Amino acid sequence: MRKIKIAIAGYGNLGRGVEYAVSLNPDMELKGIFTRRDPKTIETALNTSVYSMDTINSFFDEIDVMILCGGSATDLPKQSPELVEHFNIVDSFDTHAKIPEHFANVDEIAKKSGKVGLISVGWDPGLFSMQRLLFESVLVSGSGSTFWGKGVSQGHSDAIRRVEGVLDGKQYTIPNESAMDKVRAGEGADLTTRDKHFRECFVVAAEGADKARIEKEIKEMPNYFADYDTQVHFITAEELKKNHSKIPHGGFVIHSGKTGNNGENKQLMEFSIKLDSNPEFTASVLVAYARATYRLYMEGAKGAKTVFDIPLGYLSPKSAETLMATLL
Amino acid sequence: MRKIKIAIAGYGNLGRGVEYAVSLNPDMELKGIFTRRDPKTIETALNTSVYSMDTINSFFDEIDVMILCGGSATDLPKQSPELVEHFNIVDSFDTHAKIPEHFANVDEIAKKSGKVGLISVGWDPGLFSMQRLLFESVLVSGSGSTFWGKGVSQGHSDAIRRVEGVLDGKQYTIPNESAMDKVRAGEGADLTTRDKHFRECFVVAAEGADKARIEKEIKEMPNYFADYDTQVHFITAEELKKNHSKIPHGGFVIHSGKTGNNGENKQLMEFSIKLDSNPEFTASVLVAYARATYRLYMEGAKGAKTVFDIPLGYLSPKSAETLMATLL
Repeated sequence: MRKIKIAIAGYGNLGRGVEYAVSLNPDMELKGIFTRRDPKTIETALNTSVYSMDTINSFFDEIDVMILCGGSATDLPKQSPELVEHFNIVDSFDTHAKIPEHFANVDEIAKKSGKVGLISVGWDPGLFSMQRLLFESVLVSGSGSTFWGKGVSQGHSDAIRRVEGVLDGKQYTIPNESAMDKVRAGEGADLTTRDKHFRECFVVAAEGADKARIEKEIKEMPNYFADYDTQVHFITAEELKKNHSKIPHGGFVIHSGKTGNNGENKQLMEFSIKLDSNPEFTASVLVAYARATYRLYMEGAKGAKTVFDIPLGYLSPKSAETLMATLL
Repeated sequence: MRKIKIAIAGYGNLGRGVEYAVSLNPDMELKGIFTRRDPKTIETALNTSVYSMDTINSFFDEIDVMILCGGSATDLPKQSPELVEHFNIVDSFDTHAKIPEHFANVDEIAKKSGKVGLISVGWDPGLFSMQRLLFESVLVSGSGSTFWGKGVSQGHSDAIRRVEGVLDGKQYTIPNESAMDKVRAGEGADLTTRDKHFRECFVVAAEGADKARIEKEIKEMPNYFADYDTQVHFITAEELKKNHSKIPHGGFVIHSGKTGNNGENKQLMEFSIKLDSNPEFTASVLVAYARATYRLYMEGAKGAKTVFDIPLGYLSPKSAETLMATLL
C-alpha cells in the first residue's frame, strides 16, 4: 500500500500533536517538519526530520498533504495561501469571524494551483461546527447552543499574565450546568453570555504585589472577564506547575427540537468532548482530515474546502465495503 | 425558489412523522402519500393527498425524492429496488447484517436508471453510524461502544405479546450507567451483552393467567431476554395505556482514546439523543437526507449511497456562504 506522505509546517504543541497522531495511522508516513526557526534548535518527539521553511521548494513532489500548525492571528492568513500554491494543505484557522475571508484567499490560489486547501479543521471550528449543522438540519423546529470547557483558554491566560504584578496564570472556562440543562429543555433562548460560562483564574502574584488590585483588574477587564462571573485564586508558582500544567479542554453542542402534532414531542441531540490535551485532540482531527484531503485531491478536486464539504467516509482508512459492513 | 417535491411511500408512524417533518421545511413540498391500502381508508395528519401505489406510474415526473416508510423485514428489500428504477429514494433499512446486500440491490438498479438511492438513513443505522466512523477515525488509538435507550423496542414488545396469557406489553431497553462510565474511562473492552443493557417489561396478563410462568417464559426467552437482566412488572391495561403509549427512545455513542507521548492523554467523544418519539425523529433525519439526495441527483450522481457518502453541507437549506459565516 502506498502511504500518504504528510508534512508539518510549524512545530509547537499542535505540530507535536500531529507528529504523534500520524504515528498512530499506519496508512501515513511523516516526511518531515518545516520550521522558520533554525532546524538544529528543534528536538522532535519521534525523531522526525526537521527542515528550514526556506528549503521547502525542494519538497514539492515529496508531500501529499501539508498540515499547517501555526497560529490563526498571523501565521495562517499568510502561510495557507502561500503553501497551497504548491501543496494540498489542512489548517486549523479558528478566528470564526474571518473564516470567509481566509477561505476566499485560499480558494483563489488553490483553484489556480490545482490543489486542495481544507481550512478551519479542529473541534471548534470543526467537529462542533459539523454537529451544529447536523443538529439544526434534522431538528428544524428547535434551538441549540454551544458550551466550552472545562478547559484552559490560552487567550484569557495570556490576558491575566499581562496584568501588572502577575508572574504567571492560567484561566479555565467552565460551562454552567444549569444553563446547559435549560438548553436541553429547549428553554435556552434568553441565556446571556454571563449565564453560559464562568471563568476561574489561578494567579501567581509577584512578591509584595497588591492582590486586591490584581483581582479587581482581572474581573473588570473588558472583552475577557467583565461579562462573566470570574473567580480569582492566588497560588504559588509550584502549585501552578504541579496542578495546572496540562492543557485540558472540552465542550458541548446541545440542540433541542420539537416534532409531530403541534410539536408535542421533544427531541434532544447532544455532542460532547472531554480532552486531557486540547492540541493533541485538534491534531488528531487534522490528521484524519488530511486523509480526506488526499482523497479529494486524487479524485480531481481543487480549491478551498471546509469540513462541511467532506463525506465522512473519506476520514477512515477502511474501504467503503468494510465501513458499510462494520460501522453502518 | 423551486421547492423540492417529496412523496411518501407507506403511511404508518414513520410516514406520518415524515408528513410532519416536511411541513417544517419551507424549501420542500409534499406531493402525496402512496399506499398499498385503499387510499380512502387513510386519514392523514395534515390533509396530504393519498394515492394507491398502483397509480405510481403517473407520478414519474412529479416527484424529486420518494421517502420510503415501510419496514425492513419485507417492504424495503422489495420496494427500494423497485422504486429507484423511477425515483430518487431515501429509505431507513435497518437490518444491519443485510445492509451490504440491500445496498448492492439498490445500486444495480439505480446505476441503470440514473437515480440516487440513499439507504439506511435514520439514527441507527444513520446518525450513530456517522459518529462511530468519525470517532474511530479521529481517536485511532481507542475504543468505543454504542448504547441504546432508554426506549421502547418494538421487536421485544412483540415478543412479550406472543407469550401465552399476555394480552399486551411494552419493553424498554435501558443502558447500564456503570457500563457507560467504563467505556468513557476506556475500560469497556470486556463488557458483555448482559453488562451493557437491561430490559424492563410492562405486561398486561389475561385474567387468571399464571404470572409466575409468564415472567419465567419472558426472562428465559432466547435471543430476546435470556442474555439480559430483565425485570417484569404486571400492570393493568389502563396503566399501560396511560403511562406507556408513547414511543420514546435514545442512545449513546461513546469513544475514548489516548494520544501523545505513550498515550499519556485521554480523550473522550460522546454523542447522545433523547427522543420523545422515535419514529418522528427518524422521519426528521430522513427528510434532511432527502434534501441531500436531491442535491446529489442534481449534480449528476447516481447509484446507491449511504450517510458516509454525504457531505454534511448538503443537509442544510442554507447556502455554503451562510453556513461558513454562521455555523463554522
